[in-house]
Amino acid sequence: MSNENNSPNASAGMALAAVRERGPLVHCITNYVTVNDCANALLAVGASPVMADDISEVADIVRISGALVVNIGTLNARTIRSMKAAAAEARRRGIPSVLDPVGAGASSLRTKTARALASRGGFAVIRGNASEISTLAGDAGNTRGVDSAKAVAADGIAEGAVAFAKALALRTGSVVAVTGKTDVITDGAAVYAVRNGHPLMPRMTGSGCVLSAVTGAFVAAAAATGTDRAVAVASAIAFVGLAGELAAADAERLVRDGDASAGTSTFRTAFIDRLASVSPDALAEGAKIERLA
Amino acid sequence: MSNENNSPNASAGMALAAVRERGPLVHCITNYVTVNDCANALLAVGASPVMADDISEVADIVRISGALVVNIGTLNARTIRSMKAAAAEARRRGIPSVLDPVGAGASSLRTKTARALASRGGFAVIRGNASEISTLAGDAGNTRGVDSAKAVAADGIAEGAVAFAKALALRTGSVVAVTGKTDVITDGAAVYAVRNGHPLMPRMTGSGCVLSAVTGAFVAAAAATGTDRAVAVASAIAFVGLAGELAAADAERLVRDGDASAGTSTFRTAFIDRLASVSPDALAEGAKIERLA
Amino acid sequence: MSNENNSPNASAGMALAAVRERGPLVHCITNYVTVNDCANALLAVGASPVMADDISEVADIVRISGALVVNIGTLNARTIRSMKAAAAEARRRGIPSVLDPVGAGASSLRTKTARALASRGGFAVIRGNASEISTLAGDAGNTRGVDSAKAVAADGIAEGAVAFAKALALRTGSVVAVTGKTDVITDGAAVYAVRNGHPLMPRMTGSGCVLSAVTGAFVAAAAATGTDRAVAVASAIAFVGLAGELAAADAERLVRDGDASAGTSTFRTAFIDRLASVSPDALAEGAKIERLA
Repeated sequence: MSNENNSPNASAGMALAAVRERGPLVHCITNYVTVNDCANALLAVGASPVMADDISEVADIVRISGALVVNIGTLNARTIRSMKAAAAEARRRGIPSVLDPVGAGASSLRTKTARALASRGGFAVIRGNASEISTLAGDAGNTRGVDSAKAVAADGIAEGAVAFAKALALRTGSVVAVTGKTDVITDGAAVYAVRNGHPLMPRMTGSGCVLSAVTGAFVAAAAATGTDRAVAVASAIAFVGLAGELAAADAERLVRDGDASAGTSTFRTAFIDRLASVSPDALAEGAKIERLA
Repeated sequence: MSNENNSPNASAGMALAAVRERGPLVHCITNYVTVNDCANALLAVGASPVMADDISEVADIVRISGALVVNIGTLNARTIRSMKAAAAEARRRGIPSVLDPVGAGASSLRTKTARALASRGGFAVIRGNASEISTLAGDAGNTRGVDSAKAVAADGIAEGAVAFAKALALRTGSVVAVTGKTDVITDGAAVYAVRNGHPLMPRMTGSGCVLSAVTGAFVAAAAATGTDRAVAVASAIAFVGLAGELAAADAERLVRDGDASAGTSTFRTAFIDRLASVSPDALAEGAKIERLA
Repeated sequence: MSNENNSPNASAGMALAAVRERGPLVHCITNYVTVNDCANALLAVGASPVMADDISEVADIVRISGALVVNIGTLNARTIRSMKAAAAEARRRGIPSVLDPVGAGASSLRTKTARALASRGGFAVIRGNASEISTLAGDAGNTRGVDSAKAVAADGIAEGAVAFAKALALRTGSVVAVTGKTDVITDGAAVYAVRNGHPLMPRMTGSGCVLSAVTGAFVAAAAATGTDRAVAVASAIAFVGLAGELAAADAERLVRDGDASAGTSTFRTAFIDRLASVSPDALAEGAKIERLA
């Protein structure tokens, strides 16, 4: 299927082109598990990463950045204060920010911190899996570690995802993205589904973290070009998913016996490579974004 | 040599199958040098990683996990408190835990912390190199950085390793593993030697840390299936060593001139791939576990 | 061009041979973004890494190390104290140390910390990009994130680099290295230019951090062999640059379509591999060090 010019898929290509042209600086306060992947992913997509989490410098760094990404994957008392200060500075300056509530629902510290960050408002985007987002939306949640345990319906959308994503978007003013087999993105009114991605992605750590970091680059570019924010988020998600699809094919060629499932680390290398090599045209062609409402 | 059905090597295959079937959640409080490798290794073996080190959430996370892994590689005053709290909660709940006393002997902080953790009892497993374990067992030790400086006898077992491992096991109630050219595992009575592994493994950072994390997955599964703990630890060690052997052969094919020693990073990628691809049957066939006593 | 025996390029080969023979232990207090690459790079070059940042152990670790590397990439109040204590201990003991002032100029915390560390004296080497080093030398600087925004002249040397590097070297007693397209190294009197390297290097995170870590290994070996320190630093820079050149060629063979720019992560793997495989003879042959003054 060739994607129409005025479709969200064509917009995805333009959104990627804007990231590559502008090379936004993205300030990440993120976990130490996948921070290296986030930095390399941002460089691959054409953006520049800066990681800084001391309370006495986060405001300085936010001010020179095109976007802020807050990821609570290995939060602690010290960095929680920095996350809040950075988010407040971004809000004051009108710099778009992304919240990745890793593991919300798995501990009361995570749930409480994610809710405090989300409800203070001002995040341009909140992106998580179904358990995390439903926890933020008010559900008691049943996050298992950092994985989602939500049931998935036949269309690949986690049960109830459209409803709780809309509820959270309306309450916070954020674009909310629930990622899983099929991803749902909403600003409370418009709803998009994205059907890109590959089963190998959750078998490397950090595919979600990388997506949140890359989303930061897309919303930075969107703020500069005046692109609709929900479309920019859907574009980032389609882009990362398409890179995963292509990387899985690369891994299949590279590993023994052509068995890609035997190559989770080969896949990881190919995935970052593909973030560097997917072109705007290839994204416009390969994106599977559908407007649901 | 084909391994007998009722040998420890056959048990290793079953232990791996149990990990793959159960997919235990493994809570790691670990260093920031190799944490990404630990997470990817756990995903590769079929387990799920969760990294959390704030004192106000570690008990919550321990309670939802199948095992706890405490690695002191980049310990600090804050995380030492979290390690102790997490270990205490695991002990109270009967959740198996693994201690990796990285660098015990290299600084008084490491020695003191490792001894305090080990002696409080309750760790299902303590795994380290000869210097680290002899330091814990009471020897003054001569750890150089995080490497072992112990003499190695003709059979590949570090000098005195069986004796000090047994002494530590009897004092703590832990299964103790001393890894090196030949690995020694003992619960104070039974003693196993494992002769898997490859010289490239210590040339990538984190092969020891990865082994401790994977051991967490094996003892979690063993607790659920009622498998003997020393056998589970020997199985994890043989599994990781076999993955290293196969990865070295992969690296030899991949790097220039077929010189695997020229490919420490290619080896690292192949190593994680092999953690994903080694099957229970391949492990039962390739494990080199021998019961010494 | 074959390099003369008594040229700085021949010295580079000998400097690498000394690192490989001596295998120095290098203590890094560094950022959590690229710490894994630093550890693997040190292992690849034949050195041993030890990462330790708690104030109560850094002096112990410095004392058993051949060099200390301080990198402020993700500094915080806790680690700043540890950096200062470690640097003071290294100075007292005559153990050579390297300062990497990542992002100096980007926040007042970074600028202030880098200046305090540099001016206290005692660093054997200060290595950064043009923005960072000019910030330390007194210029207001215009660091953008962790990238340099300095103009680059026709010879590839950042504008004014020789002058501000010499000024900083004279004030601190350190060898100062300004890395970029062409690298400048000076001890305040002698000045060297290095023209190795590849445009893919800044497209992976951590090429600068890795260089600083490897420089630690070279100055440790140089201290033991009595080699001139500026020559040792130029040697480390040529070595890492040559590894980058060879890795780019490797990546070109490995990625789709032979387009190395599409393989930033494949390049990263090949780069670490090449740090392990470049021989002293290959370095003597491939180094592009020129004495300017």
